[in-house]
Amino acid sequence: LERRLAFLSLLTDFGIEDGYVGAMKGVIWQIAPDTQIADLTHHIPPQDVFTGSYLLARSGSYFPQGTVHVAVVDPGVGTARRPMAAKLGKFYFVGPDNGLVTFMAQMALNQGETCRYVHLTNKAYWLEQISHVFHGRDIFAPVGAHLCRGVALEELGEMMDDPILLDIPQVQQQGQSILGHVIQIDHFGNLTTDIPAHMLAGKHVANILYQTTNFGRLAQSFGEKAVGDWVAMIDSFNYLSLSIVNGNAASTLHAQFGDPVEVIFEKA
Amino acid sequence: LERRLAFLSLLTDFGIEDGYVGAMKGVIWQIAPDTQIADLTHHIPPQDVFTGSYLLARSGSYFPQGTVHVAVVDPGVGTARRPMAAKLGKFYFVGPDNGLVTFMAQMALNQGETCRYVHLTNKAYWLEQISHVFHGRDIFAPVGAHLCRGVALEELGEMMDDPILLDIPQVQQQGQSILGHVIQIDHFGNLTTDIPAHMLAGKHVANILYQTTNFGRLAQSFGEKAVGDWVAMIDSFNYLSLSIVNGNAASTLHAQFGDPVEVIFEKA
Amino acid sequence: LERRLAFLSLLTDFGIEDGYVGAMKGVIWQIAPDTQIADLTHHIPPQDVFTGSYLLARSGSYFPQGTVHVAVVDPGVGTARRPMAAKLGKFYFVGPDNGLVTFMAQMALNQGETCRYVHLTNKAYWLEQISHVFHGRDIFAPVGAHLCRGVALEELGEMMDDPILLDIPQVQQQGQSILGHVIQIDHFGNLTTDIPAHMLAGKHVANILYQTTNFGRLAQSFGEKAVGDWVAMIDSFNYLSLSIVNGNAASTLHAQFGDPVEVIFEKA
Repeated sequence: LERRLAFLSLLTDFGIEDGYVGAMKGVIWQIAPDTQIADLTHHIPPQDVFTGSYLLARSGSYFPQGTVHVAVVDPGVGTARRPMAAKLGKFYFVGPDNGLVTFMAQMALNQGETCRYVHLTNKAYWLEQISHVFHGRDIFAPVGAHLCRGVALEELGEMMDDPILLDIPQVQQQGQSILGHVIQIDHFGNLTTDIPAHMLAGKHVANILYQTTNFGRLAQSFGEKAVGDWVAMIDSFNYLSLSIVNGNAASTLHAQFGDPVEVIFEKA
Repeated sequence: LERRLAFLSLLTDFGIEDGYVGAMKGVIWQIAPDTQIADLTHHIPPQDVFTGSYLLARSGSYFPQGTVHVAVVDPGVGTARRPMAAKLGKFYFVGPDNGLVTFMAQMALNQGETCRYVHLTNKAYWLEQISHVFHGRDIFAPVGAHLCRGVALEELGEMMDDPILLDIPQVQQQGQSILGHVIQIDHFGNLTTDIPAHMLAGKHVANILYQTTNFGRLAQSFGEKAVGDWVAMIDSFNYLSLSIVNGNAASTLHAQFGDPVEVIFEKA
Repeated sequence: LERRLAFLSLLTDFGIEDGYVGAMKGVIWQIAPDTQIADLTHHIPPQDVFTGSYLLARSGSYFPQGTVHVAVVDPGVGTARRPMAAKLGKFYFVGPDNGLVTFMAQMALNQGETCRYVHLTNKAYWLEQISHVFHGRDIFAPVGAHLCRGVALEELGEMMDDPILLDIPQVQQQGQSILGHVIQIDHFGNLTTDIPAHMLAGKHVANILYQTTNFGRLAQSFGEKAVGDWVAMIDSFNYLSLSIVNGNAASTLHAQFGDPVEVIFEKA
């Protein structure tokens, strides 16, 4: 295997205070020294596999073809849960088999691409000493680095076809309305919903409701509204999102993951 | 254009929790894979263009010649505010035309260098899909990456000579005193002022006042004072700053941006 | 000196808000443009040299041979404390001579390797302007970058053999028990102790006590216990650590650095 420029992202719930992420980067560069490493986020709420899976797909999709995404939100570390690698369309995934892969796999399938999964069993690609609690450093980082070096997915273990996939809440269309959910709350307090832009395309939205708060119609940009106004927009990832101009909608509304959001269309 | 090693910095108010910055890095490496990317900070107070502009100039000036500084503090995203790139002496700037460029432009002009500005209009250098709310990823990151590849500034759009520049508060010299301001509060609670070292050079300082608190004379280092003492020093960027030894001056004094700071010289 | 791929880590108490770390990276890349830079952590508690030294050794040891670790927790900056570089087994250290080097030096000595220390006095390898308060940028970053370029340690100043080393609390074995300490509290609230795994190997642990809380015997993984249970395990760095499954042990117990932890063995 020759040295080569490769790309690897890291997403964890480790935080950035304790040096855990640094140790993973050291391991990666020992194996694949030319790898460009990007932190996606290390602030996934502790053990929140759903949010980890969601943000991984959302940010990870902007990386170069062949990027290795190492994701570690791993409440089952040290139990029988399988360590896993996967090829999901044009990206690699390395992490625990606990549903983290769900959104990225779904994205690949939606684009007509195939997904292949490997149960990591070939310890030749792990660190020599494996702790019970830090597979991110001991298994996932070195396996990711070996993928960056060009090792084939099949070399890493045994193919498997039953990865754990999360049960994603479904958006429901009923007559003149769509019922979705708050699926993520970001740093600015924006509420991301699971209602995709294409479900609103070509229709006339009358009202967008979060509980008793009416966000009105869709806006094109924050600039259309005044500071402090409620605003419903298609966000940068092509989903409906709810905000307050220059404010924090989530804290104002005490919004939580899973809260219902309703879009009501005008009668024809 | 050949592949080449280049340097790019990122400064935003996006925080590091939601993966926004990661998506920008993915976009950059798709276009300019050999680019070394440094995070300056992603914790600019939300939509605080002034602080963003100040910290960009202060930290960005230590980078290699030709570094591309991509800065996104962008309350006007989605409105008519212009997307912009600039050559400011030896650095490139890419970001919104809202004053973010001010301090870095002033620094270049103070060093006798020229500034050239381009209104970004050539969409060939943007992502194909442009959202209304995330020009950092869709316009500024790819434009920055194309500059890293060696694309000429003029290729990116139309030259402009009227960038928006912030109104920076002026330091006033009156008889035996100088009146300046708190211009930034850092992580340690140090108060950075806008009073440059050269205005104090060769003079005998009698008192340095923040409101009713007297910091006394200038110290050379923290080591001259005891733990808990007020201390006024020339900071690492050659401006007067006010601190408490091993303490947090900003929270102790309830200090805020813009608060007046007075330096009183001894009578000759 | 030829251009070459090198690795450098940064550990500081600067936080990530103010652009200080960014300025250091700019300085490094001006001197050694091919250097891969990893942040170990910038959230060492302000001026906590002990925690800085501990985390530096723990995370830094996973990096490639020859990595330059630049560490800046520096309450004595601007006083007579010496700026220092060292070769500690297979790693370089650059930072203040205030004990930060302790744990990494001890680790090298424990592995039978030698440590060499240099008092940084050769200003040819510093920035031209040296501030009184930011030697991280002005001395340690450029010196670290020159080591990345291949400059010899001896070039940087005068050899010294009396570096300041911290007084590390000692673990005591008394009859049927071991008395150690909480040595670090991590992001998850886990209590790391200074009791190494090898002191427990081959013995039957009866009880592990933190003050009046009994953690019972050693567990192999979190998975053996129920959510909310106390759990004592060997952590990923081969030391005894105390946790609550899916909880925060440190805040629940109001634990602090230095608190005593006792391991009681079964009678033979």
